[in-house]
Amino acid sequence: MNAPHPDAAMRQQLYSDMAPLNLTPLWESLHALVPLKPASPCVPTLWKYEHVRPFLMRAGEAITAEEAVRRVLVLENPGLPGQSSITQSLYAGLQLILPGEVAPSHRHVQSALRFIVEGTGAYTAVNGERATMRPGDFIITPSWTFHDHGSKAAGPVVWLDGLDIPLVRFLDAGFAENDTRKSQTVMRAEGTSLARYGHNMAPVRGDGPFGLTSPIFSYPYERSREALQRLERDAPVDDWDGVKLRYINPLTGGSPMPTMATFMQRLPAGFDGRPWRQTDGAVFSVVEGHGEVLIERDGPSQRFKYGPRDHFVIPSWHTARLKSSAGCVLFSFSDRPVYQALGIHREERLS
Amino acid sequence: MNAPHPDAAMRQQLYSDMAPLNLTPLWESLHALVPLKPASPCVPTLWKYEHVRPFLMRAGEAITAEEAVRRVLVLENPGLPGQSSITQSLYAGLQLILPGEVAPSHRHVQSALRFIVEGTGAYTAVNGERATMRPGDFIITPSWTFHDHGSKAAGPVVWLDGLDIPLVRFLDAGFAENDTRKSQTVMRAEGTSLARYGHNMAPVRGDGPFGLTSPIFSYPYERSREALQRLERDAPVDDWDGVKLRYINPLTGGSPMPTMATFMQRLPAGFDGRPWRQTDGAVFSVVEGHGEVLIERDGPSQRFKYGPRDHFVIPSWHTARLKSSAGCVLFSFSDRPVYQALGIHREERLS
Amino acid sequence: MNAPHPDAAMRQQLYSDMAPLNLTPLWESLHALVPLKPASPCVPTLWKYEHVRPFLMRAGEAITAEEAVRRVLVLENPGLPGQSSITQSLYAGLQLILPGEVAPSHRHVQSALRFIVEGTGAYTAVNGERATMRPGDFIITPSWTFHDHGSKAAGPVVWLDGLDIPLVRFLDAGFAENDTRKSQTVMRAEGTSLARYGHNMAPVRGDGPFGLTSPIFSYPYERSREALQRLERDAPVDDWDGVKLRYINPLTGGSPMPTMATFMQRLPAGFDGRPWRQTDGAVFSVVEGHGEVLIERDGPSQRFKYGPRDHFVIPSWHTARLKSSAGCVLFSFSDRPVYQALGIHREERLS
Amino acid sequence: MNAPHPDAAMRQQLYSDMAPLNLTPLWESLHALVPLKPASPCVPTLWKYEHVRPFLMRAGEAITAEEAVRRVLVLENPGLPGQSSITQSLYAGLQLILPGEVAPSHRHVQSALRFIVEGTGAYTAVNGERATMRPGDFIITPSWTFHDHGSKAAGPVVWLDGLDIPLVRFLDAGFAENDTRKSQTVMRAEGTSLARYGHNMAPVRGDGPFGLTSPIFSYPYERSREALQRLERDAPVDDWDGVKLRYINPLTGGSPMPTMATFMQRLPAGFDGRPWRQTDGAVFSVVEGHGEVLIERDGPSQRFKYGPRDHFVIPSWHTARLKSSAGCVLFSFSDRPVYQALGIHREERLS
Repeated sequence: MNAPHPDAAMRQQLYSDMAPLNLTPLWESLHALVPLKPASPCVPTLWKYEHVRPFLMRAGEAITAEEAVRRVLVLENPGLPGQSSITQSLYAGLQLILPGEVAPSHRHVQSALRFIVEGTGAYTAVNGERATMRPGDFIITPSWTFHDHGSKAAGPVVWLDGLDIPLVRFLDAGFAENDTRKSQTVMRAEGTSLARYGHNMAPVRGDGPFGLTSPIFSYPYERSREALQRLERDAPVDDWDGVKLRYINPLTGGSPMPTMATFMQRLPAGFDGRPWRQTDGAVFSVVEGHGEVLIERDGPSQRFKYGPRDHFVIPSWHTARLKSSAGCVLFSFSDRPVYQALGIHREERLS
Repeated sequence: MNAPHPDAAMRQQLYSDMAPLNLTPLWESLHALVPLKPASPCVPTLWKYEHVRPFLMRAGEAITAEEAVRRVLVLENPGLPGQSSITQSLYAGLQLILPGEVAPSHRHVQSALRFIVEGTGAYTAVNGERATMRPGDFIITPSWTFHDHGSKAAGPVVWLDGLDIPLVRFLDAGFAENDTRKSQTVMRAEGTSLARYGHNMAPVRGDGPFGLTSPIFSYPYERSREALQRLERDAPVDDWDGVKLRYINPLTGGSPMPTMATFMQRLPAGFDGRPWRQTDGAVFSVVEGHGEVLIERDGPSQRFKYGPRDHFVIPSWHTARLKSSAGCVLFSFSDRPVYQALGIHREERLS
Repeated sequence: MNAPHPDAAMRQQLYSDMAPLNLTPLWESLHALVPLKPASPCVPTLWKYEHVRPFLMRAGEAITAEEAVRRVLVLENPGLPGQSSITQSLYAGLQLILPGEVAPSHRHVQSALRFIVEGTGAYTAVNGERATMRPGDFIITPSWTFHDHGSKAAGPVVWLDGLDIPLVRFLDAGFAENDTRKSQTVMRAEGTSLARYGHNMAPVRGDGPFGLTSPIFSYPYERSREALQRLERDAPVDDWDGVKLRYINPLTGGSPMPTMATFMQRLPAGFDGRPWRQTDGAVFSVVEGHGEVLIERDGPSQRFKYGPRDHFVIPSWHTARLKSSAGCVLFSFSDRPVYQALGIHREERLS
Repeated sequence: MNAPHPDAAMRQQLYSDMAPLNLTPLWESLHALVPLKPASPCVPTLWKYEHVRPFLMRAGEAITAEEAVRRVLVLENPGLPGQSSITQSLYAGLQLILPGEVAPSHRHVQSALRFIVEGTGAYTAVNGERATMRPGDFIITPSWTFHDHGSKAAGPVVWLDGLDIPLVRFLDAGFAENDTRKSQTVMRAEGTSLARYGHNMAPVRGDGPFGLTSPIFSYPYERSREALQRLERDAPVDDWDGVKLRYINPLTGGSPMPTMATFMQRLPAGFDGRPWRQTDGAVFSVVEGHGEVLIERDGPSQRFKYGPRDHFVIPSWHTARLKSSAGCVLFSFSDRPVYQALGIHREERLS
């Protein structure tokens, strides 16, 4: 039988003696605190829309938009149970709005993106301007800016919400406030912001209305789709990404929100991509077409087959590669700007 | 008779004694060197296209594009005779290219902008990509980047050249180099740069191919015209500028070139603008319509009536105001970014 | 007895049905996820050095520096048990090094600061240069830069460690690597970096050796103390902060590390400060003198009396005010740069 | 005999016909406007202090500081006669102030630097703070900031003035204004700015009082001399520059003024430097010791031997090299920040 080493007993005594003073021994947890490489608790997960949609519709019957404030089914990473997080720092959910409903106006420190998955005719209002939402459109509700939604559609409208909720909570930086009215007053015509900032031009004076967030709060799908189409036809295809672009804040050239970057990529027919890994976890929404993503970390690959409106997450530092025999279009977002601002972003494009 | 003051004689003696040592007395020129306000030697000038065009055509007969290298009539400010400058720091000229001609490939430190005035079917090649030039298009040939032009048009093509030639010469910073071939090899399809950078998106990695200059080197007229149209309809009209936007470098939000800013503005029908003045002199090209500009400095206003394809210059710190009864569209450029980078820009919007 | 509302039953059924698909109802947790204001789980805590020091010395006997890798007692916030965190995003500990010991060379993504509490004669080596550590000195070991420590002192040396360990773990961005040698080779004389970058001058070319981190990795106490002394004598004293300065990265004017800001402040004799609150939690190390800090959040103030070498934490959005009858000097750090880079910093200076 | 070519006659006719319309043919001056490389009209020049000083003293008798406003002998480049310029874009002069004199308070857009050459006890006042001037000190009077000088010295005080006067005049951006009082009110103790910004620390909030200009307006010689001394002893000596540092704006890491960079360099005993050339012309003030500079451009070198208080200019794109058998210290300034901001700086370090 092993007798405890005298040092071990001395140490245990030390630990219990000092614990009431809120002191702990670093050397007992150093390797967990300062790991050799990331070991995210998150797991790769796929949400098939055909499975999720029925629950969205049941939610539509179970609670009104008014009572829910926001009628959203959270895509929760099973590696973070009870956290309402899809990666440690990001939140994602699918929101349903029914004809005639209103999601009342409020503002909060957390930045939000919306990516429309189904239905045309809902709108988002920001800074007195409405943007009609169509599938494939990317919409921003900037940090600390009043926003509300409504639906003039004939049927249900569903979109993907992406927010930096977990990050803001972690930093204890969250504030929120309801507006005085349910729907903000419309003060300018739809499309004014895009006319003002989205044609590779900008007002002669001024810094934009949203601080570090893009003054364009609605990026229409046809603009982005057209860009990808031209590049697929005319430019080299990247071995890892296919044809991929990042949305920009035209006043800085940086990401559209200070905490989240967004991307759209086209995998051409027959695409069989090389593997890569990156420290920022990324959430994907399938816009068109079918494909596969293979994800692994120190073990066998998991294969996920996806089609239109499916969603999946590639956690931090998991090796992934994308494939598509018939071709597809993917929207994605991550909090890459946070890593880049702090000088801790890492990415490996493998062979 | 006034006898020279003893001090004056002593001073004159001092001045001549020290002159051979390359010393001069500041106090004799302080007020010229450090003036109370700018007193530009430039004068407001208008070039009516109906008068200039015949000379362009005569130039077309007098010299080949090849011999001329660039067949350009310089718009020279009469206040700076022999300087080939339109303001102290800016150069402007009208370039003619005839069917089948080639303006051979070269590069130089000086940045250049082209604004197409007449004719469709000439092209500019930059970085292996051609851009077809149409009236109202704004094209950049970035600093130190090989560029050439050619014409596949049926008739003459004329454009406005704007360059920072005087500034670069003043700073003794000019280098130039001929390419090994007359026309650079076309390496990518037309429109690739605009697809890559001009849809409010950008490549995921990299800083753009042209350093401080916009990666978009061709800004099509219909894009800019559409933006102005929407804003005229949907947004407030500025009392001084009408509806005015600046072109941007989407990777920074700043001016398209480090030394020159470009603008397009629409004066609605009935516009009777307020006066303003600014330290950067500005050159205007009339795109559509008719109007007037009234310009003065410490004296009576000069009135210049302009129509399509006319050009005029508002020198530094001259008070100007714009009018148009039927409405018009103006392109303009100035070296505002230089003033702003150096912290010496000043502008007054008067009532 | 209350019968469950039919809607409630319907909802519960929905929740259990969808849970296996990793879907959860946002509306059940919205107020926790998007709070009206921060509600940090952290609590204000004070560590009195007279109580901590004996445990440090016992740790000195219980484990060698070599076995421990870093012999540190973690200052753990009792509101985050088992997290080894002092705020949600920051780590702090007190490290002991005994005469002749070596803390072997390694590097990690996490940035680290050292603030010397007791003893002269230990050193930190970074980028081939050693810095001797004296009480009150602020030292940086930049992200992903090999560093090691050693002690040539006659007695124990103790310093405060501050790291962004929790933040890097939260973002799954941590990498670490041991060096090939225990102590890096000394390649340049002590004081070279300070000579090169710390005299309000810098090399003519180049961006500094540490990316986003200050090229000065050692800020001597006497420099900072002198600055505060002059300002106390010659400049107005701030009602909240006393006389407070932030350490800078001279190549940017920003914080010395991309994730952490550091400060030194002098509370003059008789200082009775006004209350403030800020979203970034802050950790304090008492350099000289005695004083009090009163901290509260929605309840009665807790009063903490401190003296030299004591440490305390003011958690996020707790209202605090500082007092000192005889005067004192405080060093502090927070992750303010993270909040500022992301546009989510908030601070209220109250009356 | 050569008959004029028919084309030549046609062209001449064209030129005279179009001249009244302010049109000129580019092709006749293209090579001068867009040169293959810089061909500055400036020439290398040396001003020996033993020759200049007597003229300064005569100026002291010839005119009062009050009447002169600024009693300065301009160092005028003989290649730019009548321009009061030392390079095309820079101005330099030697200013004399006698005991008890006052150079009255004014402000102007032009930035100014002062480098003290002889005498202790004069002061510069900026923003309510005085800085006593000692030989080797570098002082800034920021753009558009009221400044005045006075002398409490026993004897004459002489300093080098460097200003961007020619650049501001070229850009027609100059404004100037006299203060209401001759000497501004002293509002803060001497050394307050250096305490606040010069110890690698800065105030917690705020952007500095001078916009793009350094908040430190006085850089004492001993600080800079000490830095160079340590580096000469402990660090490699650069083959072209010896031991050279640039002064910085600690709030940005950039040049102290937006239009001018300043440098101090030590050539160790026996230094025989390699040649270099740069587009920014540079003005040198010899602080200590003796040496030589050899300057050439497409011809034989000119050798200039210099000693303490001598001044010389190396014009744009002239190849120069420095030598010193006994060692020396040189202060210099150029408008490098202008070239860098505009992306047109070029430098070649030759073998």
